[in-house]
Amino acid sequence: MKTLVLIGGISQNSLSKTVYNQIVKHNNTNLTFGTFDISALPYFSQDLENNPPQTVKDLQNAVKQADAVIFITPEYNRSFPGVLKNAIDWATRPYGQNLWNEKPAAIVGVSLGKIGGFGAVQHLKNVCSFLNMNVMNQPEVYLDASSSMENGEFVPDTVEFLQMVLKNFENWVEKTK
Amino acid sequence: MKTLVLIGGISQNSLSKTVYNQIVKHNNTNLTFGTFDISALPYFSQDLENNPPQTVKDLQNAVKQADAVIFITPEYNRSFPGVLKNAIDWATRPYGQNLWNEKPAAIVGVSLGKIGGFGAVQHLKNVCSFLNMNVMNQPEVYLDASSSMENGEFVPDTVEFLQMVLKNFENWVEKTK
Repeated sequence: MKTLVLIGGISQNSLSKTVYNQIVKHNNTNLTFGTFDISALPYFSQDLENNPPQTVKDLQNAVKQADAVIFITPEYNRSFPGVLKNAIDWATRPYGQNLWNEKPAAIVGVSLGKIGGFGAVQHLKNVCSFLNMNVMNQPEVYLDASSSMENGEFVPDTVEFLQMVLKNFENWVEKTK
Repeated sequence: MKTLVLIGGISQNSLSKTVYNQIVKHNNTNLTFGTFDISALPYFSQDLENNPPQTVKDLQNAVKQADAVIFITPEYNRSFPGVLKNAIDWATRPYGQNLWNEKPAAIVGVSLGKIGGFGAVQHLKNVCSFLNMNVMNQPEVYLDASSSMENGEFVPDTVEFLQMVLKNFENWVEKTK
C-alpha cells in the first residue's frame, strides 16, 4: 500500500527527515513509503490555481495515487510549518477538489523539547478533520529528539515504539482505505 | 504609530488586500499603515537562518521598527495560510530572537463564508499567544465578504464597524506598547 509521507522540516539535516529515514529503515509492514519535496511548491495563490505549475500537479497526482498519508511535523511556535500548510492547501484547490478526502493518515510530531511537537500536531489534526481524512487517533506519536535519537538513528526503545506504531497504522489503513 | 500589516491572501485581488485598502482609506486614527510582501520570502529553513537572504532581513527590520501589527487572514481549511505562518516564523529565528515579543496586535479574519475566518483566527491567536504578542481581544473581527463588501469597497455598515475597531486598536496600542 502506497504511503505518501510529507515532511515538514525542509533543512538538509532536519529531525523530520531523520524520522522519515528511520521509518523506511525499520519498516516492519507491507506499507511502501515515498515522499515529495514540498519546498519546491510555490505559495498557494488563487492566481495560479487554474493553471498551476508542474510541481503543483505532481503533488496533486502523488496525493491522488496514495493509499495512505503520513505527516511528519516539527513544531514552530506551537503550530506546524508554513511550508507544510501550503502543501496541504494546494491539494484542496481549486474549490471543491479535496484530494485528502477519506485518506487514512497518521501524524508524527518531532521536536527538541519534551512536548514533542504536541502543539503542531493539534493544529494539524484540526485541518485534517476539516479535510475528512481518517486520522489514526492512537497511538499518538510525539518524539522528543533529545531522548529518542542518537547520531541520526533512533535508540532501540524508539525503534520498538515506531514498529508498534507502524503495525497499528497498517491495520488502520486496511480497515479504513 | 507605525503599524505593520501582514496580508495572508497573496493573489492580486485577494479579499485580504481589499480589507487592507479599506483600512488605509477609512483610517480615522493616528496609526500609519504599511505592509510587506510576504510572498517574496523563501520557506523557512534552518539552513538559511544564520545567513538569510535580503528579503528575510527586510521582514525582520520591518517587524523591529513596527509599533504595532495587524494580521489580515483568509481561512484555508480552517486555519491560516502557509505563506503567513512562514513569515511569522522567520521573525522568530534564529532561536531566541522573537521579534514579535510584546507587540500590540490585532487580527482580522475575512472569508466568503458566514464564519468569517474564525478557524484561521483561532489558530493564529494560539501562535501569537506563544509569541507573547499583546493581541486585542475585543472587538473581534470576522468579515463575511459576501455581506460586508460590494465592488471592492466596504458597505457603509462595515466602514462604521471598521472605524470603531481602529479606534479601539489605537487605544490598545497606546496602552500596551
